Amino acid sequence: MSARIVALGGGHGLYATLSALRRLTPHVTAVVTVADDGGSSGRLRSELDIVPPGDLRMALAALASDTPHGHLWATIMQHRFGGSGALAGHPIGNLLLAGLNEVLADPVAALDELGRILDLKGRVLPMCPIALQIEADVAGLESDPRMSRVIRGQVAVATTVGKVRRVRLLPGNPPATRQAVDAIMAADLVVLGPGSWFTSVIPHVLVPQLVAALQATEARRALVLNLVAEPGETAGFSAERHIHVLAQHAPGFTVHEIVVDAARVPGERERDQLRRTAASLDAQVEFADVSRPGTPLHDPARLAAALERVRLRGRAPVTPTVPTAAARSVDER
Amino acid sequence: MSARIVALGGGHGLYATLSALRRLTPHVTAVVTVADDGGSSGRLRSELDIVPPGDLRMALAALASDTPHGHLWATIMQHRFGGSGALAGHPIGNLLLAGLNEVLADPVAALDELGRILDLKGRVLPMCPIALQIEADVAGLESDPRMSRVIRGQVAVATTVGKVRRVRLLPGNPPATRQAVDAIMAADLVVLGPGSWFTSVIPHVLVPQLVAALQATEARRALVLNLVAEPGETAGFSAERHIHVLAQHAPGFTVHEIVVDAARVPGERERDQLRRTAASLDAQVEFADVSRPGTPLHDPARLAAALERVRLRGRAPVTPTVPTAAARSVDER
Repeated sequence: MSARIVALGGGHGLYATLSALRRLTPHVTAVVTVADDGGSSGRLRSELDIVPPGDLRMALAALASDTPHGHLWATIMQHRFGGSGALAGHPIGNLLLAGLNEVLADPVAALDELGRILDLKGRVLPMCPIALQIEADVAGLESDPRMSRVIRGQVAVATTVGKVRRVRLLPGNPPATRQAVDAIMAADLVVLGPGSWFTSVIPHVLVPQLVAALQATEARRALVLNLVAEPGETAGFSAERHIHVLAQHAPGFTVHEIVVDAARVPGERERDQLRRTAASLDAQVEFADVSRPGTPLHDPARLAAALERVRLRGRAPVTPTVPTAAARSVDER
Repeated sequence: MSARIVALGGGHGLYATLSALRRLTPHVTAVVTVADDGGSSGRLRSELDIVPPGDLRMALAALASDTPHGHLWATIMQHRFGGSGALAGHPIGNLLLAGLNEVLADPVAALDELGRILDLKGRVLPMCPIALQIEADVAGLESDPRMSRVIRGQVAVATTVGKVRRVRLLPGNPPATRQAVDAIMAADLVVLGPGSWFTSVIPHVLVPQLVAALQATEARRALVLNLVAEPGETAGFSAERHIHVLAQHAPGFTVHEIVVDAARVPGERERDQLRRTAASLDAQVEFADVSRPGTPLHDPARLAAALERVRLRGRAPVTPTVPTAAARSVDER
């Protein structure tokens, strides 16, 4: 049987994971953040009472079938209206998702219906069935560096020139999408990240039912770090700091492995340090070549290979490809 | 082999014909006017350089497959966005057609692609591959009743309180959609009308290549009159006057039969008068019960039955259901 894999994230980071995972199995479920308030999604959620469609649309496009029909409809979904009128800049897929939401009055039904049109390899789900806001405590915006200020909205948080200390979801403790919880429980592998750390990755561990499912599932759990620190919300962040802030936001949350681009941490001393930090999530570190050389982008084939190794280490004793890592993974189960 | 039928028109009139014709054959081609400048279509054509999608969308919905999938997507296409923002009032199908036009840069390819999604029973084509305007000479708007004034735009013409004398397309003598000409040439039956007479029916006979194809095809040609005179452009028009103004706009254009609701012309004297007027189009008159009793709407099953009789009279000698009519039809071929 093909593996069942769930990827949690949002935006371009999730698009990269999905482009990798679709190479491994037709059973990929994307669980997507729903706090975007920028661009087309922001305009649509201010106009209609809907879950912001942008990140969901990108995930659909990433999982469209590898046929002329699938390619065409992925292109159609991603196409943004031209001109300079009321539609300019709206991707067609956002409008179609918004409309399907109005007709079907259920974001999951709307996504499943659009998935049928795209002949989807898998399923795309919102992490939460209602639209959320992100709010952050941000330091460095006042003359007194110890003071922090509350910044609200995904775009505002993602682009702040200050230092994000903590993020919250509004409303707090939102419900998880039931089908997302089910998919996590039934999965062989669950992948969190990469992506905008505070606005696309951490939000998932702020949904209590998602965290509970992530801890309860028998799936192997992987965290994929970003290749580079993004400007804005995580400017200048080290790999350790990414892990640290995630652990801060979800006490008790653990993963089995953290996938780190080998080129990002070349020295053995830095690697040891990262391994020690990973212990805060109870995780081992998989250093792997996962980037497209010379770019700050994940290479789908390489990322797929690394995640397949992670998945296989979650199974009963197999010949380990990386002895140390495999030994630990068996201990942890 | 199933019959091949082409229906020319626009708006609700064409929707009625298509709802009837889909009962007769899966090979229905709708040829649709492209001069609408009102509502969502008007907003879209002023914003994007596209053929107005509204009447095309309605024709697609009329021919959607009779399956749960077809019903759902017809509902989706027809659904208008709520709210009070930039999208309010736009049917989803109009936006999707507009987007497909941008991506595919070809209105016929866009319609065919959307037809695949709707699992269409047939095909929907614009009568002309470019957007048109309608211009009319309208009398009765000045204090001098002999004076006429030029009114431009489909909505303005359709709703004028004056008397429409003549309509023109801008640009004049526009090209016909090639696939529409091909469909007419390959058809067994071609149906013009019902619909807004000056703005949805007559425009077809102002496209030289369409008129030429209509005269050259071996298909049986039927004209379906409106059940009632519409307020606005044809307020107070008799059945004769509908025929008369059509003949005025297309010298030399003929049809085999004119389908008239029997209840609209109950008396034999009026029927004889209508038969004489029909001679200006070289046509016989089929009086048939085609309305839904107590409504000003065509009944799809009844209209289908009447048009099937018309079609069968176009074939080689068969036992005529209406002897006189059948005799004439054989003479004419």
